[in-house]
Amino acid sequence: MAKNKNEGFVTQIASRAEDFPQWYTDVILKTGMVDYSDVRGCMVIRPYGYRVWELIQENMDARFKATGHENAYFPLFIPESLLKKEAEHVEGFAPEAAWVTMGGSEPLTERLAVRPTSETIICSMYSKWVQSYRDLPLLLNQWCNVVRWEKNTRPFLRTSEFLWQEGHTAHATFDEAQQETMQQLRTYRDFMEEALAIPVICGRKSEKEKFAGAFATYTLEAMMQDGKALQMGTSHNLSDHFARAYDINYLSREGKLEPCFTTSWGTSTRMIGGMIMVHGDDRGLVMPPRVAPVQVVILPIAMHKAGVLEKAEELRRELKAAGLRVQLDDRDQSAGWKFNEWEMKGVPLRIEIGPRDIENGQVVALRRDSLEKLTLPISGLADALKTLLDEVHDGMYQKALAFREAKTVDASTFEELSAGVQSGFVRANWCGCRDCEDEIKQKTGATTRCMPLEGAEVAPGAVCVHCGKPATTRMYFAKAY
Amino acid sequence: MAKNKNEGFVTQIASRAEDFPQWYTDVILKTGMVDYSDVRGCMVIRPYGYRVWELIQENMDARFKATGHENAYFPLFIPESLLKKEAEHVEGFAPEAAWVTMGGSEPLTERLAVRPTSETIICSMYSKWVQSYRDLPLLLNQWCNVVRWEKNTRPFLRTSEFLWQEGHTAHATFDEAQQETMQQLRTYRDFMEEALAIPVICGRKSEKEKFAGAFATYTLEAMMQDGKALQMGTSHNLSDHFARAYDINYLSREGKLEPCFTTSWGTSTRMIGGMIMVHGDDRGLVMPPRVAPVQVVILPIAMHKAGVLEKAEELRRELKAAGLRVQLDDRDQSAGWKFNEWEMKGVPLRIEIGPRDIENGQVVALRRDSLEKLTLPISGLADALKTLLDEVHDGMYQKALAFREAKTVDASTFEELSAGVQSGFVRANWCGCRDCEDEIKQKTGATTRCMPLEGAEVAPGAVCVHCGKPATTRMYFAKAY
Repeated sequence: MAKNKNEGFVTQIASRAEDFPQWYTDVILKTGMVDYSDVRGCMVIRPYGYRVWELIQENMDARFKATGHENAYFPLFIPESLLKKEAEHVEGFAPEAAWVTMGGSEPLTERLAVRPTSETIICSMYSKWVQSYRDLPLLLNQWCNVVRWEKNTRPFLRTSEFLWQEGHTAHATFDEAQQETMQQLRTYRDFMEEALAIPVICGRKSEKEKFAGAFATYTLEAMMQDGKALQMGTSHNLSDHFARAYDINYLSREGKLEPCFTTSWGTSTRMIGGMIMVHGDDRGLVMPPRVAPVQVVILPIAMHKAGVLEKAEELRRELKAAGLRVQLDDRDQSAGWKFNEWEMKGVPLRIEIGPRDIENGQVVALRRDSLEKLTLPISGLADALKTLLDEVHDGMYQKALAFREAKTVDASTFEELSAGVQSGFVRANWCGCRDCEDEIKQKTGATTRCMPLEGAEVAPGAVCVHCGKPATTRMYFAKAY
Repeated sequence: MAKNKNEGFVTQIASRAEDFPQWYTDVILKTGMVDYSDVRGCMVIRPYGYRVWELIQENMDARFKATGHENAYFPLFIPESLLKKEAEHVEGFAPEAAWVTMGGSEPLTERLAVRPTSETIICSMYSKWVQSYRDLPLLLNQWCNVVRWEKNTRPFLRTSEFLWQEGHTAHATFDEAQQETMQQLRTYRDFMEEALAIPVICGRKSEKEKFAGAFATYTLEAMMQDGKALQMGTSHNLSDHFARAYDINYLSREGKLEPCFTTSWGTSTRMIGGMIMVHGDDRGLVMPPRVAPVQVVILPIAMHKAGVLEKAEELRRELKAAGLRVQLDDRDQSAGWKFNEWEMKGVPLRIEIGPRDIENGQVVALRRDSLEKLTLPISGLADALKTLLDEVHDGMYQKALAFREAKTVDASTFEELSAGVQSGFVRANWCGCRDCEDEIKQKTGATTRCMPLEGAEVAPGAVCVHCGKPATTRMYFAKAY
């Protein structure tokens, strides 16, 4: 749907340094990832954005299935009475629910929430399905849409409707639920590092920031290029809280009726927003190769010359057969215009092939991440490109990791904390008190992100960076999306 | 989640001849395909049912992509004013819409329909995206949930919420839209025949039965084992009706502003209901191999004997590596109990392997469709099973086709029509008038299903089977789900 204009696209994108939010908006709209709709707070995910989601789904789904999870589908609507059974949960979610009150022309006797998350409806089914210890563990996942009525929305990052997966499992013991919670957190981390090339800090949320109704929430936090944190996913140990509220009990091997212990864990289209804000540059998107809709674009040079298009098409077929996601751009546009477009779209590798290249049996390749040019022999090109895509992936990951490390400081005073959260993450000793947490947020705009899985211990006698009371943990602080 | 009881499951299923609706309910509940939920009219699709949907999606999605379609995602909610722009469309869908009227604790200024279908929201976006003939054709598809507030619901067949795909395309001319409509109809037919083993009659709907707002609706009709018709999918040529209502115009090559011509086409989880009712028998499900969650189940006989389990597991790995969906049932249950369970679940091939089989280098295979037993050598088993699965598929298709043909009659009198629709499909000459259509329905309970793509022509002088006026077409009549 690109218009036939010879304008440079790149000049239309705000620079990250000058206006990061505008840069983000420019990039997602102008690359055809997403569009605004007539429906307040809801986004339209266009093919170039949706293809990323499909590739994310494929990759994650295989990981879930490899650890014994199966997919299922539960109703979109949740009766208000069902939502209310877990007290903390309804308090957390009812204020942002969209309510269906009419079916056709008839008012409903009980209003229905459009699911903001599905613990309640799924737990009510688990209570039917789980009878004996033989029915455990019950390991299900669901890919679906959810709705949270948001005031301030931004495509991918926070929208009233979004797409996600939510896993829900039931176990015989607290320990098994905790193991599952941590296993899924690791699965998420591996996916984010291995597929999105995003380094994440894994840790536990504070009591204030945990999921409504959970015993403990674990999170994966990534640093965006403006130094802010984005919560990329969460994994909750719900202990027996939901099992008791929704009557999920099982007869143990010893014949005793026991409550189950459940978990839930979710990631969403929000990850696409994170991918864009971690890797993009002033020319536009930089797509991590393993979820890039197009991994390699072939641009024929001097297309009208005999044999060029034929050779380009031959290459395309060869690379496709080798399993690469490849596109041949034979549109009647200038090379410069195409360079701009594909750079903006963030395609990891661009291949140029012209008459002289064909003569020499080679192509010119450009890495989108480093803008480095290479000359590659046509013979064995598919394998060379696969290796190169892995190098691009590794390079992007290392670059993001180095950025995060450079922007993360250890604060021993409140002044250091206040200064640090202006441009990145801050690690500090913290007391763990809710009041202190609220005051830090009020004074700095930063929230607690997580107590890291590794390195949360404090030295004997350590005190809170803000209130000076005894510290109980190291905590990451940051401004966040 | 099967309980450890040594009861025969089979006796718990009603027979098709005695009570077909009860048979259907027994089968879908007892095989773990689906469950009822606390939400009126909404189903829970359990893993064994959802896996069929995943396999359907995978198969269809590849076909859509092969013909140039891309996936996208549009909002769940449709503002009432947007729904109202196409007059016939709103009349058709507003009476069965679920309405969101509250966001959190605030009443909305405009109520939102939960999408019953997405022409309106998608067309409103197409109006932004299509400017020039270069933007055409626009070929998108969406996998999502939709809601139609139904009074009488049955899992898979008619539920308030269901899962489906809806394709939406925009073209420069009526002819191109018509070609797309027919191409997608053929894609559906091929899928249903090649993957679900269901023969379908393709044809055009009457004016009364067509999609609200369409120029023409084409349908795929399958015969269930009770002789009733199930509409398995539809493909609509919307002409310029929606393009005019939603302002989808393009600048032609000649520089003239022209309206687009659009199509839409959809299939849903309803196909799973059709698959069950076409192929099942009194022992339970009979799964068509290409969408069967488990294609081959391995049952070790005399499991405790040395080497049996090891050999069974070796076979499982071998078959899995060959690309078969295979499961080894090593649960501590009697062989008879397992036979019943897997027969009820409709797994196409059952493999028994015991000490003597291992000695003889063979296994015993049972075809679920014909209940025929075969002895197969272990060497080269994977290939033999693949061939066998193709034979099962073909056998199931031919059986369903023969059944339909045996239950289809050509009626030349109204008495023949009335009698014929009691047990199957009736082909007859018809006038094409709405009043006549209504009267036939009132008198017989049968509706017009379609004017077949092949053989709809009537002989000169032919008259309507009901009213005696000149006939304009051959028409299929049947009672329908």
